[in-house]
Amino acid sequence: MKKLLLIALILFLKSNFSQNYSSPDSNFQLSFSTNEKGEFYYQLKYKDKFVVKNSRLGFVMNDNGDFFSSFEIENVKENYFNEKWSTVWGEVDSILNQYNEVKVTLKQVSSNRFLIITFRIFNDGLGLRYDFPKQENLKYFIVKDELTEFSLSGNHKAFWIPGDYDSQEYTYTTSKLSEVNSSKGLSFDDIIVKSIPGNNFVQTPLMLKSDDGLYINIHEAALLDYPVMYLEVDKQNFVLRTHLCPDVFGNKAYLQTPFNTPWRTIIVSEKAEKILESNLILNLNEPSKIEDVSWIKPQKYIGIWWGMHVGLYSWNYADLDNTRIETTDWQNLKPNGKHGATTERTKRYIDFAAKYGFDAVLIEGWNVGWEDWFGHWKEDVFDFITPYPDFDVEEVSNYSKAKSVNLIMHHETSASVTNYERRLDEAFRFLKNYNYNSIKTGYVGRIIPRGEHHDGQWMVNHFTRVLEKAAKEKICIDSHESVRPTGLHRTYPNWLSAEASRGNEFNAWSEGNPPEHETILPFTRLIGGPMDYTPGIFQLRMDYYSPENKFQVHTTLAKQLALFVIMYSPVQMAADLPENYERFPDAFQFIVDVPVNWQKKKVLSAEPGDFIVIARKDRNSDNWFLGAVTDENEREFNLSLGFLDEGNYEATLYCDSNDANWKTNPMSYKIEKRFVTNSDKIKIRLAEGGGCAISFIKK
Amino acid sequence: MKKLLLIALILFLKSNFSQNYSSPDSNFQLSFSTNEKGEFYYQLKYKDKFVVKNSRLGFVMNDNGDFFSSFEIENVKENYFNEKWSTVWGEVDSILNQYNEVKVTLKQVSSNRFLIITFRIFNDGLGLRYDFPKQENLKYFIVKDELTEFSLSGNHKAFWIPGDYDSQEYTYTTSKLSEVNSSKGLSFDDIIVKSIPGNNFVQTPLMLKSDDGLYINIHEAALLDYPVMYLEVDKQNFVLRTHLCPDVFGNKAYLQTPFNTPWRTIIVSEKAEKILESNLILNLNEPSKIEDVSWIKPQKYIGIWWGMHVGLYSWNYADLDNTRIETTDWQNLKPNGKHGATTERTKRYIDFAAKYGFDAVLIEGWNVGWEDWFGHWKEDVFDFITPYPDFDVEEVSNYSKAKSVNLIMHHETSASVTNYERRLDEAFRFLKNYNYNSIKTGYVGRIIPRGEHHDGQWMVNHFTRVLEKAAKEKICIDSHESVRPTGLHRTYPNWLSAEASRGNEFNAWSEGNPPEHETILPFTRLIGGPMDYTPGIFQLRMDYYSPENKFQVHTTLAKQLALFVIMYSPVQMAADLPENYERFPDAFQFIVDVPVNWQKKKVLSAEPGDFIVIARKDRNSDNWFLGAVTDENEREFNLSLGFLDEGNYEATLYCDSNDANWKTNPMSYKIEKRFVTNSDKIKIRLAEGGGCAISFIKK
Repeated sequence: MKKLLLIALILFLKSNFSQNYSSPDSNFQLSFSTNEKGEFYYQLKYKDKFVVKNSRLGFVMNDNGDFFSSFEIENVKENYFNEKWSTVWGEVDSILNQYNEVKVTLKQVSSNRFLIITFRIFNDGLGLRYDFPKQENLKYFIVKDELTEFSLSGNHKAFWIPGDYDSQEYTYTTSKLSEVNSSKGLSFDDIIVKSIPGNNFVQTPLMLKSDDGLYINIHEAALLDYPVMYLEVDKQNFVLRTHLCPDVFGNKAYLQTPFNTPWRTIIVSEKAEKILESNLILNLNEPSKIEDVSWIKPQKYIGIWWGMHVGLYSWNYADLDNTRIETTDWQNLKPNGKHGATTERTKRYIDFAAKYGFDAVLIEGWNVGWEDWFGHWKEDVFDFITPYPDFDVEEVSNYSKAKSVNLIMHHETSASVTNYERRLDEAFRFLKNYNYNSIKTGYVGRIIPRGEHHDGQWMVNHFTRVLEKAAKEKICIDSHESVRPTGLHRTYPNWLSAEASRGNEFNAWSEGNPPEHETILPFTRLIGGPMDYTPGIFQLRMDYYSPENKFQVHTTLAKQLALFVIMYSPVQMAADLPENYERFPDAFQFIVDVPVNWQKKKVLSAEPGDFIVIARKDRNSDNWFLGAVTDENEREFNLSLGFLDEGNYEATLYCDSNDANWKTNPMSYKIEKRFVTNSDKIKIRLAEGGGCAISFIKK
Repeated sequence: MKKLLLIALILFLKSNFSQNYSSPDSNFQLSFSTNEKGEFYYQLKYKDKFVVKNSRLGFVMNDNGDFFSSFEIENVKENYFNEKWSTVWGEVDSILNQYNEVKVTLKQVSSNRFLIITFRIFNDGLGLRYDFPKQENLKYFIVKDELTEFSLSGNHKAFWIPGDYDSQEYTYTTSKLSEVNSSKGLSFDDIIVKSIPGNNFVQTPLMLKSDDGLYINIHEAALLDYPVMYLEVDKQNFVLRTHLCPDVFGNKAYLQTPFNTPWRTIIVSEKAEKILESNLILNLNEPSKIEDVSWIKPQKYIGIWWGMHVGLYSWNYADLDNTRIETTDWQNLKPNGKHGATTERTKRYIDFAAKYGFDAVLIEGWNVGWEDWFGHWKEDVFDFITPYPDFDVEEVSNYSKAKSVNLIMHHETSASVTNYERRLDEAFRFLKNYNYNSIKTGYVGRIIPRGEHHDGQWMVNHFTRVLEKAAKEKICIDSHESVRPTGLHRTYPNWLSAEASRGNEFNAWSEGNPPEHETILPFTRLIGGPMDYTPGIFQLRMDYYSPENKFQVHTTLAKQLALFVIMYSPVQMAADLPENYERFPDAFQFIVDVPVNWQKKKVLSAEPGDFIVIARKDRNSDNWFLGAVTDENEREFNLSLGFLDEGNYEATLYCDSNDANWKTNPMSYKIEKRFVTNSDKIKIRLAEGGGCAISFIKK
């Protein structure tokens, strides 16, 4: 009997083979095999439907190129994992992490080198990654290409943005995979730096819907010391092939064993709602590396910011176009009269924040250099420590302390990252000195070191480095124009949020974001982590500020409120001007009430590109909040309130009025109060481009 | 009369023209002209001999490419300058700076942009540079090519090394310009990083000798915010064309007006000795930017260094080939038993330094990371703050303070400059804390940011940045594998010295430096500034350390002594092991006596590639020191001592013994004492590859 088993094992290890491994609930079936060339393939089924057909794994290296064939399976190890863990902050207070793990050790016979492929099969999808163990014949190596494939079962519908090494700030296109073409139909002339490798490349998180009814989301988790993954679309065979962000030599990653790649993730469900409820990405990230997390606090904030986007204020203090940070006489410039970040205005914002219970105030344009910060690939732009003459950092700091309002430091780097890194020690000393507790970073422009990209390994390491340095100093980060999240906020909970997508600001000065935009983002960008979308615009038409400005936000006012629930972020901005909020105090009450940290999440209804309805329970009370948004189509929902806990709630409904319409009448809303329990239903109607927000206050 | 003048002036400005401008002593004649295309040319004569024939000036830009034609001369301004200035330290205590300046303002008619060309005509040569004034139509620009030409009058003899973006560590070839070919006859397999753009490129300082008896040296002065200049040799027409070190995009410099380029320099004399006495390069640099220079002190030093080169010791503590700076357990590595920088050895070196009056001790290999520092283009190699377990930095620091010996910090960056810059604040805090007063920096390997070169604008700015930061902290710099000097030690007197050439170390582990090497370096590399050549090797054959090591230093012992006078550096190393010095205490006395800071310099006799004899007067006493070196040929000199001041001197002659020979009998020397005055002559004989050192102690 023993002998037989051994023979079976040997056969199993030495020959091509195929065997099924399942998710804990048995809905997913994973199998893998090597072919006659020793190439390694995997496939994934969900309830007997193919999610991924035979798809290759492996690498091309810079030296000894082939690391994808001549593989023999050395051994296979299985493991079951089941754990519940608590979040520091987030959409839910605890998360179940349950999976079957399969570790396949491959030996490349030709080179006597080893590669481990680890699969984790969850009840909501699959994660797979490569481990390069410490070994004699592989110490330092350069990845030329990663060959990971996702061979799909058909010509799925895709919600995609173009692959771009430097930006994710695109509107989404919905098309069949066969119709992916980033040279067509996209309006992205408003994107500042574009680096598109070709027309068939798309970014992740990529949302797909198959004709046989599966919602599939492909992304990555735990992106560390490695470049961003894009997907090249084979439009004939519906195979997605990994394309990594290169450096200037076309090299993808400079690595040293032991090393493991990020996880390649596939979330799958028959229900769109379950995609939004998945925690697979977070589960594939490591627990917090920060031991004491008591200082990390979600925050709702306002800022001196939107005023610049609508043209009322300027970041810059003077009007000049040829300055040098080290030699310009900043104290004696002639002010242009529009500078936003003055001491007086900042104090008024602090007053407003204190009055309405906001945690923090962001001040942009406080520091010298904005006259001439952009577009010249210039290295020494900002010094991060010199305020403009009309911004008294000491006075502002003292005032904010007295009012118990936090200050958010703004570090725009203009993508001159070498400059930022070499000034970082001093910049941190400065901000700690003035009592700032978080930083909004910005990376607008072409990266310096010249030749690097926002999404390359070097920049990925930069972002991690800033997180680690910030953690040491007990500082939180909200990164703009950064790499898009991959669940790393589990490991670095001081990474509160990121932009890394097309935010609300585009509505102020460009063709903007179409009404469907916010019904897609939660299925794409937000799968990786929170986004600082900056919702809450009340004054939706820009001609209010100047008649010639014909741009407008592509939502109704009620939808702007709903976004506080739909677009999860632990650092959530009420982006409009205080004076606009004071024009609509009844609507503003929702922003005052809505929290930024949650206990529970319930996705009531969702379809990417069409609509999303989410209910969330406050982490620090028994109150619930609901947001519903639609695309350019009017919709009605008859919502069961079964998600509420036992007891009575006062529901306040902030809805589109009957004649509201995102384009023609966006600011028309109505507010209604009623008492409800969890056995009630509520009928709501969303206007074209509209939304609805509801607070349920426990009585 | 007035009217006539005006007409003449207009003609002068608007038409092609040629006019002569002279040096103060009238020996040099400069003229310039524009041709029918509006291209600008200059030429230079010395006593009616052409130094430079009609040679173009101008630029190609990245945008609006042509910045070399369509020029009109807008105006010409002349100025005479005459000043004597004092050096902080140096070869002489004061320097005469006397020149006629001609500033030519050019207007590019096609673009309405302006360029100023500034000529300074000295009695020993010419400096010319470009100024881009602040102007409406030129703010930011990228230099694609600088077109500066040096059209020589014939097929001169040249002493050259190959143009290389990353290294100057070559032996020199002596050939006609027409025979320049860096693919032939050079042995440079021992150079670690080579980036040679082509076979016809040479580096500066370039030493030339014309058939009609002129010595010509071409280099640059005040290289700031700009890449290194190489010269492309047109072997048919003997035109040298500027080639700037590119970045990875082929861009040369990212600039902003106002800006001026470095000076392009031509030193000319009928006498080789005068080339070595020229201060033209220093004169073209700006005065010290450091106000308080009282803390800047030249120093003679020893170090834990040569022991590694000869294989006795190792930089690394353990033998490993796959480490990570942040995660390796450095404290518990298994020592290899050869580690050089131990606490005990360092204390012995401090004792030795104290005993013989050395100012400082350099300790290399004190910090973790050396196990695996090289060759992988790895970014996080050193942290600059963590000592090996057998190096007690606190104990060493206290011991050195007690013995009044300075410590020289060693910062090997392995060319990972991003890593160095981001750790620099902490590294400086560390070294200040432990009382180090200078840093030997090292840049071995391929530069990170990947794609940059040692000689590119980005790295030039890095070196300046380190100098400025060091100056703030009162730290001196001795940079190895850095950009070669261009007289910037006038502006940054804390830049004591640099390697940036092929030093003595090559003799320990390679084919080495031929006997002529040190007769060429003062005419080439040292024209730009001091070199840390590390002379003073007494144990000249390496088989002393291990029988299989057949390498040897290509000089006699006496020549090693002479190098302390020939190879000027304010931070001069006695490079051999203390135990070797103690084997030859009589010869070592010269090293003990010789100073490193000088009042006067007299070049008694010199011919590049053949021999050099220099006498120098100590800055702090009335003593003189003389060094004489020869190439592979034996030579005799009958030296007049007229350079000595009035009075009696005890002369100690450290000479090759009669049977000395660099190859077969290098360590044979004789020492002789006699009393002399300035009316005496001394006859000395140098062996093949030999030298002679003489101290003249005032009685």
